[in-house]
Amino acid sequence: MDQAAFAPQWHISEWLNSPAAIDLEAQRGRIVVACAFQMLCPGCVSHAIPQLKAMHELFTPLGAVVVGLHTVFEHHEAMKPIALRAFLHEYRVRCPVGVDAAANDGGLIPQTMAKYQMQGTPTFLLIDRSGQLRRQIFGHISDLQLGAEIMQLLCEPADG
Amino acid sequence: MDQAAFAPQWHISEWLNSPAAIDLEAQRGRIVVACAFQMLCPGCVSHAIPQLKAMHELFTPLGAVVVGLHTVFEHHEAMKPIALRAFLHEYRVRCPVGVDAAANDGGLIPQTMAKYQMQGTPTFLLIDRSGQLRRQIFGHISDLQLGAEIMQLLCEPADG
Amino acid sequence: MDQAAFAPQWHISEWLNSPAAIDLEAQRGRIVVACAFQMLCPGCVSHAIPQLKAMHELFTPLGAVVVGLHTVFEHHEAMKPIALRAFLHEYRVRCPVGVDAAANDGGLIPQTMAKYQMQGTPTFLLIDRSGQLRRQIFGHISDLQLGAEIMQLLCEPADG
Amino acid sequence: MDQAAFAPQWHISEWLNSPAAIDLEAQRGRIVVACAFQMLCPGCVSHAIPQLKAMHELFTPLGAVVVGLHTVFEHHEAMKPIALRAFLHEYRVRCPVGVDAAANDGGLIPQTMAKYQMQGTPTFLLIDRSGQLRRQIFGHISDLQLGAEIMQLLCEPADG
Repeated sequence: MDQAAFAPQWHISEWLNSPAAIDLEAQRGRIVVACAFQMLCPGCVSHAIPQLKAMHELFTPLGAVVVGLHTVFEHHEAMKPIALRAFLHEYRVRCPVGVDAAANDGGLIPQTMAKYQMQGTPTFLLIDRSGQLRRQIFGHISDLQLGAEIMQLLCEPADG
Repeated sequence: MDQAAFAPQWHISEWLNSPAAIDLEAQRGRIVVACAFQMLCPGCVSHAIPQLKAMHELFTPLGAVVVGLHTVFEHHEAMKPIALRAFLHEYRVRCPVGVDAAANDGGLIPQTMAKYQMQGTPTFLLIDRSGQLRRQIFGHISDLQLGAEIMQLLCEPADG
Repeated sequence: MDQAAFAPQWHISEWLNSPAAIDLEAQRGRIVVACAFQMLCPGCVSHAIPQLKAMHELFTPLGAVVVGLHTVFEHHEAMKPIALRAFLHEYRVRCPVGVDAAANDGGLIPQTMAKYQMQGTPTFLLIDRSGQLRRQIFGHISDLQLGAEIMQLLCEPADG
Repeated sequence: MDQAAFAPQWHISEWLNSPAAIDLEAQRGRIVVACAFQMLCPGCVSHAIPQLKAMHELFTPLGAVVVGLHTVFEHHEAMKPIALRAFLHEYRVRCPVGVDAAANDGGLIPQTMAKYQMQGTPTFLLIDRSGQLRRQIFGHISDLQLGAEIMQLLCEPADG
């Protein structure tokens, strides 16, 4: 899903590390970087969570919105918000994290994950100032490339 | 607690990855290596769990009993057995793991952890063929030293 | 030396991995990324050389000029060009590497290193399309930040 | 070459980090651990050299003799003793390192490497108290296993 298209609205049941809900449409004019993860996904814990933390530290001061999305599609009983809260505390994740809303029909895939047709975790979303989903990356991406791709969006003019 | 003393019995409420309970006294004649951890402890996940898996792979064929102990002393709601089960599955931990029994008095520290006066997680226990607790290590120990210490116990004669 | 100033010309006695000398002034219109290193500097080998290789792979196709500079200021006998050639072969460094020219006065610090007043190795130089030295970083910089800083220069218009 | 056989004598042209030559036969009664490496071999630098340093620190106080052997079979001009000396200084290798003597017939393989029929670097040699070569490992061995194998030899009685 690399072609540009408007990034679908997220369906979040609860925001952690944030005083208020983060509405995607309200971010127009800013770039948004999201990392969809599961707290019990080993690749997320070893790579994506450190990247999420480093992106938050580096790009938030530059005006980007950096958030995590907890997109639980397996082991639902083990990754409820109370467990996520403990995880974020222990791993010192300080950026906002939205809990992807459970499927309406009782299915395993939560709503945002389904709408973005994510293939698994981790998945990175890069959304530009105009609200277009410019990149969706499933799995591993190097820090060097991630930094470059985010900066590319940051360099685009606000009225681009 | 480096001086030798008989290793106190464990109080385990449930064994995972094991067809039966593992009774410590019944292991006399074999050496026992235990790694006490919490599934949401970052240092456990990055270091101690890989060590537990490697010890199980290397030393079980040599006759050692290698087990994990899930000693939850914080975030109890987030680390119940159903969450531990998902964790062990995702991190491919195949060795037996005992769930340290909750305190009788409603306290935070589980029973085995309390009896061994563990200071936190991870904690490694090395128990010799005669049932003596020869080493209790809190925190990080290098693989080189861990391998050496376990082999030292394995080299001791059975009637030592 | 973070304020912008024209990047001084390099003094290179020999170019490896390059059919011709790379003249810094001739690169106007392109951004130039240089990593000054020593082949026997542990921090260079463990961090900067992998970064140099990754930068070359990622940013050369985007029009950047990525080079190494071998700035030997100690153990000169051990790091002659014949040793450097073996090092580049073994570590699979494929980008151009210039050998910083020895001091004219018999001093230890080679000429380019002296002119840029580098404090040691590794040192990264980021030069923009107009030939200005925009960043000089001594020591460690994270991949995330390095990727972002290079992309920022790449996003500047050619007639900036 | 895992079957036990007497460890052939080494042919060393120069010892570094040692006040005197280390004669293998004179070590009877002690176990000897050698790591054959090349200073420009990436796998040696990233894995075997840290292992050599850790073995020296851990097992020398326990009575083992831990040494490096610089077995140069390629890029000879780049890895002369003066370069090795700089390498050992920069990487803070403090244990004795013997320079494997060049072939008598002008061949590329140095004498000790040839006699032990090493396939490349790194190669670890574990020699027991009686002078038998108990293990010869080419390539990577985990720290856990390395620690265990060395301790196994240390646990054997001196008159074994």
